[in-house]
Amino acid sequence: MTYELYYWPGIPGRGEFVRLALEDAGVDYRDVGKQSANSGGGAGAVSEFIHGQAAGQPHFAPPVLKAGELVISHVANILQFLGPRLGLVPDDEASRLWTHGLQLTLTDFVAEIHDTHHPLGASLYYEDQQQEAKRRGAIFVQERLPKFLHYFERVLSVNAGNEAYLVGTAHSYVDLSLFQVVTGLRYAFPRAMDRLEPELPEVTALVDRVSQRPRLSAYLTSDRRLDFNDSGVFRHYPELDT
Amino acid sequence: MTYELYYWPGIPGRGEFVRLALEDAGVDYRDVGKQSANSGGGAGAVSEFIHGQAAGQPHFAPPVLKAGELVISHVANILQFLGPRLGLVPDDEASRLWTHGLQLTLTDFVAEIHDTHHPLGASLYYEDQQQEAKRRGAIFVQERLPKFLHYFERVLSVNAGNEAYLVGTAHSYVDLSLFQVVTGLRYAFPRAMDRLEPELPEVTALVDRVSQRPRLSAYLTSDRRLDFNDSGVFRHYPELDT
Repeated sequence: MTYELYYWPGIPGRGEFVRLALEDAGVDYRDVGKQSANSGGGAGAVSEFIHGQAAGQPHFAPPVLKAGELVISHVANILQFLGPRLGLVPDDEASRLWTHGLQLTLTDFVAEIHDTHHPLGASLYYEDQQQEAKRRGAIFVQERLPKFLHYFERVLSVNAGNEAYLVGTAHSYVDLSLFQVVTGLRYAFPRAMDRLEPELPEVTALVDRVSQRPRLSAYLTSDRRLDFNDSGVFRHYPELDT
Repeated sequence: MTYELYYWPGIPGRGEFVRLALEDAGVDYRDVGKQSANSGGGAGAVSEFIHGQAAGQPHFAPPVLKAGELVISHVANILQFLGPRLGLVPDDEASRLWTHGLQLTLTDFVAEIHDTHHPLGASLYYEDQQQEAKRRGAIFVQERLPKFLHYFERVLSVNAGNEAYLVGTAHSYVDLSLFQVVTGLRYAFPRAMDRLEPELPEVTALVDRVSQRPRLSAYLTSDRRLDFNDSGVFRHYPELDT
């Protein structure tokens, strides 16, 4: 089966969390948003599929994954679905619930990262909420960023092992997502991350480990990997990186 | 088995979404935060359980549910776990994925509702971010509130049936959560909801239907049900209800 990913083109955004799992597992997928309108892709096709009634079930927002007859929305829901199929989560129920909970904490973290540059709402330009963003950004850098990252450092430390895994003794999809979040934070908040990372040896080790996985490493240097830019979740505004 | 819910006392907050499922199903549960410190309950017991290493797995935030040996965090994760056990979700995989996706959309909605009064961060008092809250609140009332509620109205409309169910032809846990969100919004944004609800006949019908379920109705008038107040997610600040 070929998975179909529906996500906006041009930004890594939340779709990238799904891509990392598919790429790491080396499975075929159709990245609909990136394809041309002529071949049935592009933003229009994404919008139509998600908001339309293709499956009789309108979705609120992308990413959405189509897997045969199943249509699944929300990153954490998609990864929970893909995990067992791609060998990216342990088999037992306790581990799966724990992994999904960690992923949902990352979901909350990503929303807070986004809101540093859009504290009033996504419908206003950054420039129209820049003063508020500076206040929120300062609180984020001082309080929320260390709180979340120290939490994941603690999870890694408690899960003692020879390598940096969040869950059990093997690589899982939530490791890929934490890799993406930290990579995005290094892009968006380089000063704050330079200051903070020495306190986070396990998190840093996880990012190093993930980046060296053969298929993922090949993906990261391919033209399929989208650079962070000035749209989407992770944006580098130096005035917020205090 | 007696479920144990770990959530802060004194506010309905996110814990209430879990309580509604347990109460609607009529199962026994121990509401640890509400119990006295003498009997091993209270905020201290919640904090210790969640952040401690009882299960070798620190959780980021409550609510957390303990079900025998399993420990589960995040509302959507808990409800997904409880759904099949309490008869609050259909059996088939497609329905379960769809229900969980709807719940995760409600999760996002609840976070946005919270951030109307805390646009800069939860660590500042409302009074210290009131001007920003007024701007965010206005955007929320004009754009986000109708967008989310019309989305759920559309899901209900597309799912044609004789009664207002979000999923299939039966009551499910996400119906209970939408009930709680709308009830909270009526408390927090009475003017905006008065204006909007005539456009939302299916949503209103769902709230009516849920409120008349016998066990839930008994719960809502019991002293176990916590009133909305000036803490937690749903707060009534008239200056935000434009």
